[in-house]
Amino acid sequence: MRYRKIPDETVRRLPIYLRGLLFSLEQGQRSISSQDLGELVMVKPWQIRKDFSYFGGFGTRGRGYEITKLIKQIKKILKLDVVRKAALVGVGNLGSAVLAHEDFKTYGFDIAAAFDNSPDKIGKKVNNVTIEDIVKLASLKRHKIDLGIIAVPRKAAQETADALVEAGIKGILNFSPCFITVPKRVKVITIDFTMDLARLPYYMPKS
Amino acid sequence: MRYRKIPDETVRRLPIYLRGLLFSLEQGQRSISSQDLGELVMVKPWQIRKDFSYFGGFGTRGRGYEITKLIKQIKKILKLDVVRKAALVGVGNLGSAVLAHEDFKTYGFDIAAAFDNSPDKIGKKVNNVTIEDIVKLASLKRHKIDLGIIAVPRKAAQETADALVEAGIKGILNFSPCFITVPKRVKVITIDFTMDLARLPYYMPKS
Repeated sequence: MRYRKIPDETVRRLPIYLRGLLFSLEQGQRSISSQDLGELVMVKPWQIRKDFSYFGGFGTRGRGYEITKLIKQIKKILKLDVVRKAALVGVGNLGSAVLAHEDFKTYGFDIAAAFDNSPDKIGKKVNNVTIEDIVKLASLKRHKIDLGIIAVPRKAAQETADALVEAGIKGILNFSPCFITVPKRVKVITIDFTMDLARLPYYMPKS
Repeated sequence: MRYRKIPDETVRRLPIYLRGLLFSLEQGQRSISSQDLGELVMVKPWQIRKDFSYFGGFGTRGRGYEITKLIKQIKKILKLDVVRKAALVGVGNLGSAVLAHEDFKTYGFDIAAAFDNSPDKIGKKVNNVTIEDIVKLASLKRHKIDLGIIAVPRKAAQETADALVEAGIKGILNFSPCFITVPKRVKVITIDFTMDLARLPYYMPKS
């Protein structure tokens, strides 16, 4: 089955539903209504039902959605049901936080390599990954790593992206707060938390 | 003028437009078409025009939008045109990255206080902010800080949120990958970058 027609906005919400479902499962629940899931993840129930309808995820009236089934389905659609190897470039404060993040495994990601240009860091081990010299990025191809995580200073972001593309990466998670340019075949998602911070005051009452 | 009717999805995109506009301005541009802005921030031009129409931001046919005017307008709508003091709780790897982030000032945020529970960190200065003992959170009220940033381990997130609410905070940026519960009057935005990572494979070609 192919799911190509799912709108981007729905794809953006699917991981959020997934997190809510995993949480409910942890709490011992077996099924959940769109109402309860909506309260948990702060999305309107009708929106959830609409989003799920794109892949035929219909709940049973009065009983809601079967949690484990839905988790499996969403993971499959998002292609999270296979383990993917990722490489981290830049092991500063943010890079270290990424390496230590507990949830990567949950979503099928294995940070299998880390790179930095600082002699102080090269050779050190963080979370079972030995930090390598950034000049060795080309080795990614050999190790079948097709996902890159950029956590270098803004100025070095574009050249890092270029090197990752050169090394055969197919997707990039970019933490540098800037625009990077890559060939169309490579998917980039930029995480800039100031974007989220910037919409907080809109919802805050007046001081 | 009030802008209350702007949909959440539009509010979510406004900071993204703002970043694109600031970038274009830096590049020396004075006006921009929805087409060019769309390519830069990867949003469809019709969506941009629709979003801007909510606050009367109409461009001139053939000339596009006046960049400085639009920046001012978006900042005003998002209430980013006044400086807001924020307090950071948790100065680990992620918290340090937050403190060092260059862009907070651009969006009107001033991280005026930082807290941690580790005796090794208390009293140290990071980016001109002296790290205080977490037990002193109640002092926020006195310092007119109404925005809290949570960067503590998952287990401590809820109690930190409770303490921030107790200290009179009105908005929380939560970096702990978990759900926190606060009174309705407090707005919480949770940043979980695994949510973004989780939608990357969907767009990547097959390995």
